[in-house]
Amino acid sequence: MTVRGRFITFEGTEGVGKSTQIANAAETLKELGIDCVVTREPGGTPMAESIRELLLAPRDESVNELTELLLMFAARAQHLHTLILPALERGQWVLCDRFTDATFAYQGGGRGVPSERIALLENLVQGDVRPDQVVLLDAPVETGMTRARKRGQLDRFEQEAVAFFQRIRDTYLARAKAAPSRYSVVNAADSLEQVSAHIRELMCKFQSDLL
Amino acid sequence: MTVRGRFITFEGTEGVGKSTQIANAAETLKELGIDCVVTREPGGTPMAESIRELLLAPRDESVNELTELLLMFAARAQHLHTLILPALERGQWVLCDRFTDATFAYQGGGRGVPSERIALLENLVQGDVRPDQVVLLDAPVETGMTRARKRGQLDRFEQEAVAFFQRIRDTYLARAKAAPSRYSVVNAADSLEQVSAHIRELMCKFQSDLL
Repeated sequence: MTVRGRFITFEGTEGVGKSTQIANAAETLKELGIDCVVTREPGGTPMAESIRELLLAPRDESVNELTELLLMFAARAQHLHTLILPALERGQWVLCDRFTDATFAYQGGGRGVPSERIALLENLVQGDVRPDQVVLLDAPVETGMTRARKRGQLDRFEQEAVAFFQRIRDTYLARAKAAPSRYSVVNAADSLEQVSAHIRELMCKFQSDLL
Repeated sequence: MTVRGRFITFEGTEGVGKSTQIANAAETLKELGIDCVVTREPGGTPMAESIRELLLAPRDESVNELTELLLMFAARAQHLHTLILPALERGQWVLCDRFTDATFAYQGGGRGVPSERIALLENLVQGDVRPDQVVLLDAPVETGMTRARKRGQLDRFEQEAVAFFQRIRDTYLARAKAAPSRYSVVNAADSLEQVSAHIRELMCKFQSDLL
């Protein structure tokens, strides 16, 4: 029997501590004797990282929202078929910093791209591949805006940012609620020790689920 | 009444003389008093040209066929919405070196991507926008390859085998046969004078069709 690795993605808005907790998760899995690969989206291979640079580079030209969406999925196709699926087939676990939930949250919830368009590309690129588990690091948007508030009234841009990130958070939470067996919501507003303990517990649970 | 410009694309395998004949077509339209824009795919805007560079750069990493397809359409979405549609709406004619027929021919016929996948992305990106006229410069594959080699270093696409280009030519010809009112097949193996005369006639015909 071939043992396929588990595909675990980490999601959340800016500044919720994803990088720290992915490193913590990888360390925990290592202690459990599980071989794992840590990667990120958009990116993960040289070609996909080049697409990431195109997406993130500030430019004068306004980027069409469909262009952005197609670039995301171009990078994802490369990442999935070149790195993620081969690793899973070798039996490694893959820990990925963001995946398609982020597209639904940022391009869908945030920018208003119809979710049917995203689902169409998800099916085209991924077939029936979905993360086995999604770890959602969730915190109130205001937590990240605390410093701005201390400076006084939020300006127009900061207010827009709050509404934008609120829509992203709401989309993540709605997706978690719709498929609770695949999503683990972690309260990222807790202390670092509490969040780290929660992540370690989850990794142990994901392993024991397989036994 | 708003007069919308005409959208004319030029297609064909490598070395059939597209660049020369697009310049000839633009010159002819200018003489007829028609304002036109000459552009190319993949590319046409700074963002889309950056995507073109990603697509054409030789690289060690094998590029997934879906990645290539999605990058093509990402560039196309940007080109269409930023340059082509605004020009047509201003009443300008747009002469474009390759468009979606090239995707059906190269990625579909050449690489074997199912045409349903290409059609799905065509509908997503273009809605019901299609070229008003497609000028197909057709020549035996050997003729074009000899000319392309004379230009110097071959890029990643040009390095493919003759069989690959034969499938591309066959796909182009099949598409032209299926919609003869939208396609004009020009024998690019004729002398330069004959081909140039044929292109000038076509431009005059496209204009008189509107009168």
